[in-house]
Amino acid sequence: MNKQQLISEIKSKRSFLCVGLDTDITNIPLHLLNEADPIFEFNKAIIDVTRDYCVAYKPNIAFYESLGATGWESLRKTLEYIPDNIFTIADAKRGDIGNTSTMYANTFFKQYNFDAVTVAPYMGADSVTPFLEFKNKWAILLALTSNTGALDFQMDQLKNGARVFENVIFKSQRWGTPENMMYVVGATRGELFADIRKIIPDHFLLVPGVGAQGGSLEDVCKYGMNSSCGLIVNSSRNIIYASSGSDFTARAKEEAQKIQKEMEHLLLNHKII
Amino acid sequence: MNKQQLISEIKSKRSFLCVGLDTDITNIPLHLLNEADPIFEFNKAIIDVTRDYCVAYKPNIAFYESLGATGWESLRKTLEYIPDNIFTIADAKRGDIGNTSTMYANTFFKQYNFDAVTVAPYMGADSVTPFLEFKNKWAILLALTSNTGALDFQMDQLKNGARVFENVIFKSQRWGTPENMMYVVGATRGELFADIRKIIPDHFLLVPGVGAQGGSLEDVCKYGMNSSCGLIVNSSRNIIYASSGSDFTARAKEEAQKIQKEMEHLLLNHKII
Repeated sequence: MNKQQLISEIKSKRSFLCVGLDTDITNIPLHLLNEADPIFEFNKAIIDVTRDYCVAYKPNIAFYESLGATGWESLRKTLEYIPDNIFTIADAKRGDIGNTSTMYANTFFKQYNFDAVTVAPYMGADSVTPFLEFKNKWAILLALTSNTGALDFQMDQLKNGARVFENVIFKSQRWGTPENMMYVVGATRGELFADIRKIIPDHFLLVPGVGAQGGSLEDVCKYGMNSSCGLIVNSSRNIIYASSGSDFTARAKEEAQKIQKEMEHLLLNHKII
Repeated sequence: MNKQQLISEIKSKRSFLCVGLDTDITNIPLHLLNEADPIFEFNKAIIDVTRDYCVAYKPNIAFYESLGATGWESLRKTLEYIPDNIFTIADAKRGDIGNTSTMYANTFFKQYNFDAVTVAPYMGADSVTPFLEFKNKWAILLALTSNTGALDFQMDQLKNGARVFENVIFKSQRWGTPENMMYVVGATRGELFADIRKIIPDHFLLVPGVGAQGGSLEDVCKYGMNSSCGLIVNSSRNIIYASSGSDFTARAKEEAQKIQKEMEHLLLNHKII
């Protein structure tokens, strides 16, 4: 999916919600465990009730990988089930020397046909650029994450005055374009979005940390939204585990719809729709 | 495997060689493609001829993952085939928020029973500590990598005078101990090993970049070896792809043996054996 198509989807669905498929076999409703592939059945049910309210799905690869080969099969079926007009993100946080990053890019873009992969920046340009060589595919680079550990290295100040995360954004934006790169910026860092927008006004930002992790959607939009939205905001646990009973689909739908309504309001306020 | 056992293996085998299993279906001898599982057959053959000369194997996870579920099955069989007295490293470069890193740790330590996993530091403490909670298992944190991209962020100087990679080592060594953490330091950075040993005299270092990438084994030992060796030096392509013909096992054995002989000499010189 290209940038223009993504923006169209945001405008027509009046939403910039990404539903995180952090599907954990120990957290899904018990009655699904009788199914041949409980993980896929859960995802299918969640997709059925949330697809009208979101523009992206983001399977968290760790959750599938931890089940071995069967987990990867559940992932493949999930990917095939997601409608074509919805952006798909492999939340994999990969990154290695060039020939190895090429392998990772093949995995997610060719084997599984994702639109985007999250990538870690520590190993620099040759660990990221292999993800940028596929037409209409995206690398989403970690910049400022939503967890407490973000304070360990990302916020350190460099001798030239920039903080590490700013330097990551500043250098890496020249490796690609706003058409094939996005950045992960945690919702828990509200006002820092303003600093980031000074460096990359046009790039899309993938924003985790609203909901369970405590970030404010309103602050994210206040400081991070640009004239074509420029945000994909993720919610995982709040939606997919809204209930652990047989009403999990109804509750997931309700949560997704609630967030979509908030987003519609914010898109209107910012004159994007 | 614990630290003492690893040191014993190094002394008894007179080697600190790790063979990197970067097994690429497009690079293995053509006659293996008739086998049901060519990747496993290749690894099995390589393990048979190199097991006496190395103390560790390091499958590069990207290469298996890129084949989908079948690649993970080849990986599982490979792991089961590696003798128990050989240290196994999942070169996966994982790292995510706490609950997700726990999933990755489960994948490699429980699903596949690796001794160690390589981990990326960018997301800080809570992305690394879940890998440290398993008895006799190891996290190997990226510090200074061997690729050109290492110069993009790792060598940047912080306001406090330290370089980013030094700060990563300095902070992170307090998250674990020399009994459950190692660091990746590329062989291409010879003299920087001395700076690193000032911060972590006792930790093992996993050293890629000898051979194909141009690092010098002698320099690595001169600046990086400690009184119990403290080094695991990896070679991948030089050994496993020493020949693409039917003599690939003989040539792989020859290469592994040649490196082991150099290592024996260095261990003697440094009075470790």
